[in-house]
Amino acid sequence: MSATATTRAPADARARFRTGLRVHTAGWAPGHAQANLISVPADWAYEVLLFCQRNPKPCPVLDVTDAGSWTTPLAPGADLRTDLPGYRIWKHGELVDEPAEVTGRWRDDLVSFLIGCSFTFETALSEAGVPMRHIEQGRNVAMYTTSRPCRPAGRLHGPMVVSMRPVPPQLLSTAIRESALLPDVHGSPVHCGDPAGLGITDLGQPDFGDPVDALPEDIPVFWACGVTLQAAVMSSRPPFAITHAPGQMFITDARDEQYRVA
Amino acid sequence: MSATATTRAPADARARFRTGLRVHTAGWAPGHAQANLISVPADWAYEVLLFCQRNPKPCPVLDVTDAGSWTTPLAPGADLRTDLPGYRIWKHGELVDEPAEVTGRWRDDLVSFLIGCSFTFETALSEAGVPMRHIEQGRNVAMYTTSRPCRPAGRLHGPMVVSMRPVPPQLLSTAIRESALLPDVHGSPVHCGDPAGLGITDLGQPDFGDPVDALPEDIPVFWACGVTLQAAVMSSRPPFAITHAPGQMFITDARDEQYRVA
Repeated sequence: MSATATTRAPADARARFRTGLRVHTAGWAPGHAQANLISVPADWAYEVLLFCQRNPKPCPVLDVTDAGSWTTPLAPGADLRTDLPGYRIWKHGELVDEPAEVTGRWRDDLVSFLIGCSFTFETALSEAGVPMRHIEQGRNVAMYTTSRPCRPAGRLHGPMVVSMRPVPPQLLSTAIRESALLPDVHGSPVHCGDPAGLGITDLGQPDFGDPVDALPEDIPVFWACGVTLQAAVMSSRPPFAITHAPGQMFITDARDEQYRVA
Repeated sequence: MSATATTRAPADARARFRTGLRVHTAGWAPGHAQANLISVPADWAYEVLLFCQRNPKPCPVLDVTDAGSWTTPLAPGADLRTDLPGYRIWKHGELVDEPAEVTGRWRDDLVSFLIGCSFTFETALSEAGVPMRHIEQGRNVAMYTTSRPCRPAGRLHGPMVVSMRPVPPQLLSTAIRESALLPDVHGSPVHCGDPAGLGITDLGQPDFGDPVDALPEDIPVFWACGVTLQAAVMSSRPPFAITHAPGQMFITDARDEQYRVA
């Protein structure tokens, strides 16, 4: 099914993912904040939190659980082990599985981080008239690993990952302004225009997600992306981690508006 | 001396504090971000960082050092052990000393947190026409412990502390808007008007800093304050901590504008 026209309350969406629906979540539950998930052993929690503090554009922290807990005040009643469409299991930096739920993989020492997601500002951009071409095309957003290193934190290091949306030139200012007002969900773009500025050689070959069809006059606009933490897992090789599958986010009950600064 | 009309570059200000000048820093080095300091043993660092994440209005993190380090990229060449006007030494939650520098008290396991300070937005408010009455009166800003608990993080808990500035009614909207655009330095107020709403019984008796003279029509406006972490130290009693003395901040080289979202 296409997610394009789907409008569902967060709890309804989570219930459908819990019973096995695997989709990317762009366009789902418009107006509600979506989040990246990364769960690491408690021994790595400080470095993940510090990495996020040192790299706030890609890694804005919305919530951190206590060790072992799979609940969050951002979505009362939700279960972080089952309520995302898809997960990734990482061992020593290698992707070893992409299950639909992780109940059997859970550990008492896992600390889970919910990180802001650019899907959250897509509603604001749409309402301001900026077309969301990947949603129109029923695709996951295109994400790219860049040549820009994050500031490391202890053992944790890696490159910044960005999401890209093609924006008509006359709407570039609107897109920048609207996203800047939501700094906790990546805020303003980190780069506009020539992808070479971020070390990206081919927009047609994203590292995560799907390529998107752009109009000739569109400007590629790049926002810092929470998948940066998956790139850090790949680079830094912690013994164990669970993340969301790219584009298959945790949908919270929080309203986008809650993260708007003015 | 009064700090009222003093305008000095950050490095000059830090050099004067390093050689012993003890003043509150409101109005110093206008346009440059000021910061609260708290240094704790590494064993407490995760809980401090998580406390900040869970209480972003009082505790916006600007930088975290590696253990033992007294330097920060926010002010190259500065020494966090000497470059503030005054410090506080805490043992098991008790204030045991207020020295002018802490070189002899430093420990290899101390992790230092620089937390955004409302002095940072005072320049923006002044430029927008909002009077800063405590600066006009040559006083430290008035700070109050509230009845509003912070969200705890592990062993760390305590009440929110606020700073208060009297604002003429016709400028209330301006004060809220200008500070909202600086979310990393406490952002918009947490409360306006009747101090009883925060459990404050007497504005004339601040818990930190000096009382301020207001005009009869002024509205008291309360911003979350980084001294909240000192209140958490008092409540949670870590074995050791170093903080700045209230109102005697670390002046960074960062421009206020760097923290403006739009």
